[in-house]
Amino acid sequence: MKVRVFDTTLRDGEQTPGVSLTPSDKLEIAKALDELGVDVIEAGSAITSKGEREGIKLITRENLNAEICSFVRPLTVDIDAAIECEVDSIHLVVPSSPIHIKYKLKKSEDEVLDLAVNAIEYAKDHGLIVELSAEDATRAELNFLIKLFKAGENLADRVCVCDTVGVLTPQKSEELFKKITSEIKLPVSVHCHNDFGMATANTCSAILGGAVQCHVTVNGIGERAGNAALEEVVTALKFLYNIETNIKLEKLYEVSRLVARLMKLPVPPNKAIVGDNAFAHEAGIHVDGLIKNTKTYEPISPEVVGNKRRIILGKHSGRKALIYKLKLMGIEASEEQINKIYEKIKELGDLGKYVSDADLMAIVKDVLGKDLEEKIELDELTVVSGNKITPIASVKLHYKGEDRLLIETAYGVGPVDAAINAVRKAISGVADIKLEEYKVEAIGGGTDAIIEVTVKLRKGVNTVEVKKADSDIIRASVNAVMEGINLLLQ
Amino acid sequence: MKVRVFDTTLRDGEQTPGVSLTPSDKLEIAKALDELGVDVIEAGSAITSKGEREGIKLITRENLNAEICSFVRPLTVDIDAAIECEVDSIHLVVPSSPIHIKYKLKKSEDEVLDLAVNAIEYAKDHGLIVELSAEDATRAELNFLIKLFKAGENLADRVCVCDTVGVLTPQKSEELFKKITSEIKLPVSVHCHNDFGMATANTCSAILGGAVQCHVTVNGIGERAGNAALEEVVTALKFLYNIETNIKLEKLYEVSRLVARLMKLPVPPNKAIVGDNAFAHEAGIHVDGLIKNTKTYEPISPEVVGNKRRIILGKHSGRKALIYKLKLMGIEASEEQINKIYEKIKELGDLGKYVSDADLMAIVKDVLGKDLEEKIELDELTVVSGNKITPIASVKLHYKGEDRLLIETAYGVGPVDAAINAVRKAISGVADIKLEEYKVEAIGGGTDAIIEVTVKLRKGVNTVEVKKADSDIIRASVNAVMEGINLLLQ
Repeated sequence: MKVRVFDTTLRDGEQTPGVSLTPSDKLEIAKALDELGVDVIEAGSAITSKGEREGIKLITRENLNAEICSFVRPLTVDIDAAIECEVDSIHLVVPSSPIHIKYKLKKSEDEVLDLAVNAIEYAKDHGLIVELSAEDATRAELNFLIKLFKAGENLADRVCVCDTVGVLTPQKSEELFKKITSEIKLPVSVHCHNDFGMATANTCSAILGGAVQCHVTVNGIGERAGNAALEEVVTALKFLYNIETNIKLEKLYEVSRLVARLMKLPVPPNKAIVGDNAFAHEAGIHVDGLIKNTKTYEPISPEVVGNKRRIILGKHSGRKALIYKLKLMGIEASEEQINKIYEKIKELGDLGKYVSDADLMAIVKDVLGKDLEEKIELDELTVVSGNKITPIASVKLHYKGEDRLLIETAYGVGPVDAAINAVRKAISGVADIKLEEYKVEAIGGGTDAIIEVTVKLRKGVNTVEVKKADSDIIRASVNAVMEGINLLLQ
Repeated sequence: MKVRVFDTTLRDGEQTPGVSLTPSDKLEIAKALDELGVDVIEAGSAITSKGEREGIKLITRENLNAEICSFVRPLTVDIDAAIECEVDSIHLVVPSSPIHIKYKLKKSEDEVLDLAVNAIEYAKDHGLIVELSAEDATRAELNFLIKLFKAGENLADRVCVCDTVGVLTPQKSEELFKKITSEIKLPVSVHCHNDFGMATANTCSAILGGAVQCHVTVNGIGERAGNAALEEVVTALKFLYNIETNIKLEKLYEVSRLVARLMKLPVPPNKAIVGDNAFAHEAGIHVDGLIKNTKTYEPISPEVVGNKRRIILGKHSGRKALIYKLKLMGIEASEEQINKIYEKIKELGDLGKYVSDADLMAIVKDVLGKDLEEKIELDELTVVSGNKITPIASVKLHYKGEDRLLIETAYGVGPVDAAINAVRKAISGVADIKLEEYKVEAIGGGTDAIIEVTVKLRKGVNTVEVKKADSDIIRASVNAVMEGINLLLQ
């Protein structure tokens, strides 16, 4: 039997501090989750706001395959809001620990049971699927937890155990779910938080203990340290536990990036499965092993989850990684030349410097005796910007091949855009080069911090990535683009 | 007995693609790790490069409390490099899985055993502590793994089981370590990778199985998806398993940020324990619960790990969070006014907008009937920059209180720096306001991407945080600073 995936990216995930989605953003993510194959989409908490209800309605009207769910408290007003949004189901969350019942709810245990039963009955009368969820269940007394679930057993459709503050361990999780699934006839769901970094392991362990549905978010986003990450749970289940879900694994990377973009929450490079470094290798012994057999340092192939392999050169790189990379770049060098190139890479690495493609090319040209000839040189750059003027830039480039000047002006939405537009216009007659990627990152915390700009340029099938750091973002951007253009013109 | 912490931030952590530390960076991190209380510092791999050896030597000469270790392969040349650096111990890594032995090493099992024994004997002859580590042990045949450890049993000081590609599960981990610790007399160490997001759980489970030392990195950095995170493992051991280490928990946040800064690897906001959101709360029911008792939505207090609690307003915030926050800001409002402020916050949230302190103040002023009077208005801003000129800026501000113009010019290391310097000079006679933080982030991927600038300003004991997004980084920066100044002047 396949484990059901209950995705709460649009509810717990959207509760990430500082994140807000518009209704149309919500719809776009819901459609992507549906294509990914999740079984339930918790679209939000209908009572939250007018915009939230608008978003949920957009989703329920789309007739997706997934069950569409709203979070509700055991209150008629919450359930009415969910009904108004025409959801299929509700995730009815009832406090279950002494601390939540006593301090937050200020009610007796019997009052909580009544609240729960009344809410379930009200929702069932309105035709909703009900998942009865025990909040803070992992700090609840087991007797009360069972009592709560028993109260809902003949009324609700599923129950859910929430590890609200992330205090489960895999051992406790397996044991707890064994007990609950042996007592309760309904399908049991697990909802884990990552406060101690164990949400994925606790979720998988709950499934070993008998849970048949897991609550997860894309990229593991959510309040505080987030929720169990969808991509980690489904791949761990498949490759480590041999348990299937309906998720189309090859779409994981793409959905990860959609959520990151709309929520403005970048994916950390070392995020398991979907991070850009998840299948990147620098250390010598690692790259050496990989070249012989990719399985040596990869548990699964990156393509399986829609990600890709990257080989990085740096001070930990071995000679074999260099030879592999040079081969990919179509460069032939003698044994002795390779040794020289290798030494220089190590030196750069020792200086604390990352070896970009541009650095490698510069080293190669140097060692192979051919100068890295700049075909087009930046002669002059001037940028004017302000609050009452359209940013403008002028460039004067020296096209050495034909010994002529390329002079252009351009405007842009900002000073960097204006400057790059001017460079683009100036070289348009010389070569067809496209700017594929532009990234900026501040290193340090002041207005005089170093800004690191990364550009990726394409000319036909060749691409080149250049990084430039400067305290002036305009200079860094233009220098990176100029260096990239010259590399592509070699 | 306390579990020993073997920190590999400076070896596995530094192998993070794109990361390179200078020798002095390495020393700074080693000193911080020593103060944090780690038992072993794996300072690097001495054979890697000249700079690496320089860094290790700087560390060994510091006479820290921790044992200083170098990674080595079972090769005399590697061990000699470690000896040259005067380390206390070596982490001797020997491939143990069929795939590593057959494809990477191209040797027979007996040859591997000989390699290991010879290396240990050579190292012991030179007075080194030896930790015999089985690479890819979790994909090795158990018989061979035991054979390898038995071969080193009367020679080495410790053994280590490496889950090189992160394929353990907590269940397999506990079982595997039970078997190994029942067979091998030496102290057993665990080294986990995070490819499926389970490194922390697998490390803790290994300790339950009998391991007495764990390999970890600060912030969980490392090749691919990284290693088990020091801060997660030690807090999970303490608070979930009741197992102690020598780590001074209150230093965790500080050390996390030092490593992030020197390695240029920002800590994701939702990183467990040390992320800036790890103790941040937005959702209404969460903040409501917290105000009554912080334990409702926090497994431990943030101060315990040197982190802090943050309350964020947004579309998920409840009225109580607003009242709590207004109280913190010293603002008094009637029931009706609070309702109006609350409505406006929800509206902003529905538009997909994050509600910053500045937004809240603007709403408050609006609702309380006092206009958010701009005391100082930006009239003109002009910035000129280029490759052959020093970036300069001029500003004309209108100081409304005294109806006079404040005109200044300034230069800077870049156009933003110049513009902010000019603003600072212009207001210096009016108020003593300091820029405490300046952060920039690009949303989207082109030169016309929206740049989000966050500034934090201080006037006496009052601070204010303002976020501004604009496609022009200069405009965004100046507008954020101007808004912050006006808020602080209220």
